Amino acid sequence: MSIKDLLSEGIQSTPPSFVRGILKAASDPDVISFAGGLPNPISFPQEELLASMERIVRTYGSKVFQYSITAGLPELRQYIAERYNRRFGLHLTADNIIMTTGSQQALDLIAKVLLDKGDGVIVEKPTYLAAIQAFSLNQPEFYPVELTDEGLHIGQLEKALENRVKFIYTIPNFQNPTGLTYSEENRNQVCALLKGRDIVLIEDDPYGELRFDGESLPYIGAGKLPYSILLGTFSKTVTPGMRTGFIISENTELLRHISIAKEASDLHTNIFSQYLIWDYLTHNSLDAHIAGIKALYRKQAQAMMDAMKRYFPATVKYTQPHGGMFLWVTLPEGMSAMKLFPKALERRVAFVPGDPFYIDVQDANTLRLNYTNADCDTIAEGIRRLGDLLKEEP
Amino acid sequence: MSIKDLLSEGIQSTPPSFVRGILKAASDPDVISFAGGLPNPISFPQEELLASMERIVRTYGSKVFQYSITAGLPELRQYIAERYNRRFGLHLTADNIIMTTGSQQALDLIAKVLLDKGDGVIVEKPTYLAAIQAFSLNQPEFYPVELTDEGLHIGQLEKALENRVKFIYTIPNFQNPTGLTYSEENRNQVCALLKGRDIVLIEDDPYGELRFDGESLPYIGAGKLPYSILLGTFSKTVTPGMRTGFIISENTELLRHISIAKEASDLHTNIFSQYLIWDYLTHNSLDAHIAGIKALYRKQAQAMMDAMKRYFPATVKYTQPHGGMFLWVTLPEGMSAMKLFPKALERRVAFVPGDPFYIDVQDANTLRLNYTNADCDTIAEGIRRLGDLLKEEP
Repeated sequence: MSIKDLLSEGIQSTPPSFVRGILKAASDPDVISFAGGLPNPISFPQEELLASMERIVRTYGSKVFQYSITAGLPELRQYIAERYNRRFGLHLTADNIIMTTGSQQALDLIAKVLLDKGDGVIVEKPTYLAAIQAFSLNQPEFYPVELTDEGLHIGQLEKALENRVKFIYTIPNFQNPTGLTYSEENRNQVCALLKGRDIVLIEDDPYGELRFDGESLPYIGAGKLPYSILLGTFSKTVTPGMRTGFIISENTELLRHISIAKEASDLHTNIFSQYLIWDYLTHNSLDAHIAGIKALYRKQAQAMMDAMKRYFPATVKYTQPHGGMFLWVTLPEGMSAMKLFPKALERRVAFVPGDPFYIDVQDANTLRLNYTNADCDTIAEGIRRLGDLLKEEP
Repeated sequence: MSIKDLLSEGIQSTPPSFVRGILKAASDPDVISFAGGLPNPISFPQEELLASMERIVRTYGSKVFQYSITAGLPELRQYIAERYNRRFGLHLTADNIIMTTGSQQALDLIAKVLLDKGDGVIVEKPTYLAAIQAFSLNQPEFYPVELTDEGLHIGQLEKALENRVKFIYTIPNFQNPTGLTYSEENRNQVCALLKGRDIVLIEDDPYGELRFDGESLPYIGAGKLPYSILLGTFSKTVTPGMRTGFIISENTELLRHISIAKEASDLHTNIFSQYLIWDYLTHNSLDAHIAGIKALYRKQAQAMMDAMKRYFPATVKYTQPHGGMFLWVTLPEGMSAMKLFPKALERRVAFVPGDPFYIDVQDANTLRLNYTNADCDTIAEGIRRLGDLLKEEP
């Protein structure tokens, strides 16, 4: 017998992460990699965090090392509530927030709480590949709705909603993988369509703070829809290594069940990290820190777009992100990004082919590029290599 | 509609943690609580950890704050492999180990990888309540096998194995909740019974390092059975707040699937904490540190047993642990520990009634006492209060 016969259906229907698979190939120092999704280390305020470490150990002693409560550090949850209230006119308290082991865990918890096998889930097409993974463990039926320059395709959304759907998963700001942002009108349309329906709306917003162009838009459902969930994280603004994310909802009954799932999953989020980030936030200006990150990412995104204008054939299209970490390239119809990938590696440049961001598409003519983790000259050189390759493709 | 109609069957069949529920009641400073499961803060080497923090930030810089690999820090996994090889004559490498967000996550990951609804799981009777929680999300069929002073009841185990069972979950050393340890003979019997069967054996061993009486025993299945999993943690030896546990298996195919589940669940374990614990372990003597913890727990366990001898009626029985953090009290038949609980709280002493440690038992005449988190005088006073109450019960 092989272990295969013992495996659950859930794990057998969960794809391994393509990205993590290719990161090894892309980690050759000669390869210019646009494949990862790593924040630039400028976003880690190392010295300030080190000062906070000493302060919290001196101030709180054993509390920062002991077991703690499932919902998370009340002071940090209060800080988050106030920041969202200030930025978005919401009316949150610490009770509306559960800290999670990164935003990834939030996806796992929501799937646990809402999904039985065969339940419907609406996702963007394309969508975040690790969300597909997290949900797949529970074997849902996926209903992908195309993402346009404006946001969700409203006609397709209406049609998808005819199915028995438990939740809809969206990334409205600087979406991963496309870099697209839902327009305000699209948000209103989506909200209107969901109003009165018994369906949970998830707005996953890891990049919202990283807007380097234009003004922040209101959320689709937060403060408006009864089954609304917002996901946030400190991974892109302070440090991802500490795995500190959070779930926000005004629906405390839903949160109570999420809390039971959280407890069963890992008891509570690392309490040292929660104290650390809270201390950092209350002794430093997060806004000033984020301003530095945004200035850098704006420059890097611009460098990539400039290089694409210069080196890519005109038949290749790409999104123009207003924030976040990614942009999305559409190759001429019929060209497979997956087949392009090994050729690109030969030229020492890497990206993520579109396939793993779709539920059921093979040899997609799309690919994702990350611009936050290389300097502008390196970005230009990588895009030149990719452009040369594209020009030679039939 | 209520949110109830949207909930998964899994979450609806998962009990909230009774312990976490009563911890609030037991947190009144006038109450002497034996209800928790907190390590004594002596087990947190605060100054040494603070020194390690500074060292790893200075040495590794942004690496300790960045995203990292799913399996966990290779250096830490190597350290763990070598320690287990040395202590138990195993032949592990870093590839046999996946770091988890506390041992609790290991239970969640194993359930994800192995359990479909209705699959059989053998558990000890009684067993760790948060394991019941973690497994329940996947709606298995539980087959409890009674725990005796020697270990698993072999006749009951044989019978339970007649069912379609995916795994057996054991805590062979200083079990939670009973404090019991499987004898070497019982381990050999269990191993012989499992040999040749397609069933995964989980040995959850959070307390194994905390033996204050006698010699360590070999594991049941590690190094002997093809589908053997060991769980370990730094929660009881260094710090639980950092949520750093690990899964050990010689079955790398099984580990590969666990790694996919891990990735879908929270991408990777807090990398700062992994660097921190690894640096602590390589700059200090873990054995010397553990010796201090054991000396303290031996004294505390003895204080509790002495007080029970003095204050408890002779009709009340209790286990005599050789390590770990708990002992288990059996009241006269027919007496409900759950009904005793509010009366005990009135006398300002708290414990965990047996019920939540069983799959399907109500008003059990058993209860769990923790002795690691109060000084010896407080332990004696709490046991006196409990003894007075027990003497008055009919």
